[in-house]
Amino acid sequence: MNEFELIRQYFLRPAHKALLGNGDDCALIAPGAGNVLAVSSDMLVAGRHFFADVDPCALGFKSLAVNLSDLAAMCAKPLAFTLALALPNADASWLAGYAKGLFACAERYGCELVGGDTTRGPLTISITVMGEVPLDLASRRSAARIGDDIWVSGELGGAALALALKTAGQAQGSTGPVMPELVRRLEYPTPRVELGLALRGMIHAMIDVSDGLFGDLRHMLDASACGALLREADVPMPAQLLRLPVAQRRASAFAGGDDYELCFTAAAQNRDAIASAAKACQVRVTRIGEITAQAGLRLLDGGLEPVEATTVAALCGFDHFG
Amino acid sequence: MNEFELIRQYFLRPAHKALLGNGDDCALIAPGAGNVLAVSSDMLVAGRHFFADVDPCALGFKSLAVNLSDLAAMCAKPLAFTLALALPNADASWLAGYAKGLFACAERYGCELVGGDTTRGPLTISITVMGEVPLDLASRRSAARIGDDIWVSGELGGAALALALKTAGQAQGSTGPVMPELVRRLEYPTPRVELGLALRGMIHAMIDVSDGLFGDLRHMLDASACGALLREADVPMPAQLLRLPVAQRRASAFAGGDDYELCFTAAAQNRDAIASAAKACQVRVTRIGEITAQAGLRLLDGGLEPVEATTVAALCGFDHFG
Repeated sequence: MNEFELIRQYFLRPAHKALLGNGDDCALIAPGAGNVLAVSSDMLVAGRHFFADVDPCALGFKSLAVNLSDLAAMCAKPLAFTLALALPNADASWLAGYAKGLFACAERYGCELVGGDTTRGPLTISITVMGEVPLDLASRRSAARIGDDIWVSGELGGAALALALKTAGQAQGSTGPVMPELVRRLEYPTPRVELGLALRGMIHAMIDVSDGLFGDLRHMLDASACGALLREADVPMPAQLLRLPVAQRRASAFAGGDDYELCFTAAAQNRDAIASAAKACQVRVTRIGEITAQAGLRLLDGGLEPVEATTVAALCGFDHFG
Repeated sequence: MNEFELIRQYFLRPAHKALLGNGDDCALIAPGAGNVLAVSSDMLVAGRHFFADVDPCALGFKSLAVNLSDLAAMCAKPLAFTLALALPNADASWLAGYAKGLFACAERYGCELVGGDTTRGPLTISITVMGEVPLDLASRRSAARIGDDIWVSGELGGAALALALKTAGQAQGSTGPVMPELVRRLEYPTPRVELGLALRGMIHAMIDVSDGLFGDLRHMLDASACGALLREADVPMPAQLLRLPVAQRRASAFAGGDDYELCFTAAAQNRDAIASAAKACQVRVTRIGEITAQAGLRLLDGGLEPVEATTVAALCGFDHFG
């Protein structure tokens, strides 16, 4: 199978939203009237972002889902994506599985594959996703305001716990029947696209939690020149985490990546509207703290006592070069 | 140096054309009034598309230039790009060189870095470039018409010859003082952006010659459901190629990649307009054949005798999985 046959067999689909899809030097797309284009790129490397032997269908789904999460965090509606794929070899069964998961995600969220590149090389996936949003409704991370509520969608820490258990070779059987649900959060994350759209106009700043709540939130605080006070007891997490020792629970829920939930800030007057919007999307949203004039990220424990700053700081850092 | 410091130090530049540049979940861009967005992605892998020890400045320039060439082939004007970069380590001198070449190309062609991703991994570069073009002026590869002239810009085969000599370890001294010029074509290809813009409205189909003239032209012929008759003696090539045995000359000029010249078709009535447009861009353009109703790619040799079909077919294929 040569490169062009590979593309034809696994990755060519007719374009509906794009003006010109796969197969030319460029694809042609246009945001709808009144919209601008939101663009984000991610790169996933085997052995770093995923296990080389991960189910290719899960990998296909997740590789697009993590990009769609960036669109969700800007309140943008998915439009199209390109896929650049380096493969050690053209393995038909791997490609069929990867394409199945990729297009399942693409169809679920209305995002078309419009171009890309395939080449031989160490297994690496780079996706660029494009969506549309009215310029004044795009939720920038610099838009948090003092006094804002801080909200998160879903639950935090489940994906990180699943990853920790898998890495430790304990994924089988050790945590009882609920474990597959955590693995599913790790392998098939849900980009909160509908929630992002439903929150348009109700919120100030928003980010997606990809590298860990504290680290990602800190980027928002830096960009917005403010601080945050969080209540540990209010942070929603799966029941399995609540049974863990406090250090491990905090590491998963506050520093663990891969949840792809949304963290956003909004004025208190929008609490009811936000709750209604989230309910319509069937997504849980929870207020976990407030934006403060005092800089830095502070955490109150279950007894509403301040957690030591060094403990909080240690939970802030995820670094691909660390 | 952590990931965010690395991005800040080497890759953060203020956005001028983009509505929102680096540093958020997404960049925000918009094509100008009357334009749509042209999008293309490429992936370059160390050891496959470039030597791992290539001058990082040249690599930075070329990694963007090859993407701009795709925009040129659609008559699109560069606007913005994202960069996804996997690096074995955060080597400050390599990064400084890479960024220097990358931004030299970006500034030369007015294309802004608006986002991306950096991670640890085998050296891999994936760029997605975005440009703007009025929908009806985008030159699709399916638009060739029977009777059209076939044109190419510049000269073909120089980059392939340089690569062959470098691969054979003969790059130093063996071909005299003109050799550095060929190496420059390989390492610092010139995307024909201005020519693509100048040709708007004068041409039918256009592609860029990245994988070899014959292979790329065949994609155009397939998409346009027609054939081509080329005159070998008319194909422009560097003087060094003319001194080579015929098989080697043909391999470089017809099957050799990395030239990033434009190949386009146009009605005979536009010959003067095209010549003037190219002259204004200071780019040589040459008519090398015609689009035919008869399918397939045929070549006439220096005596205008048909070259055997098997010889032509052998020059058509470049395959990343071959």
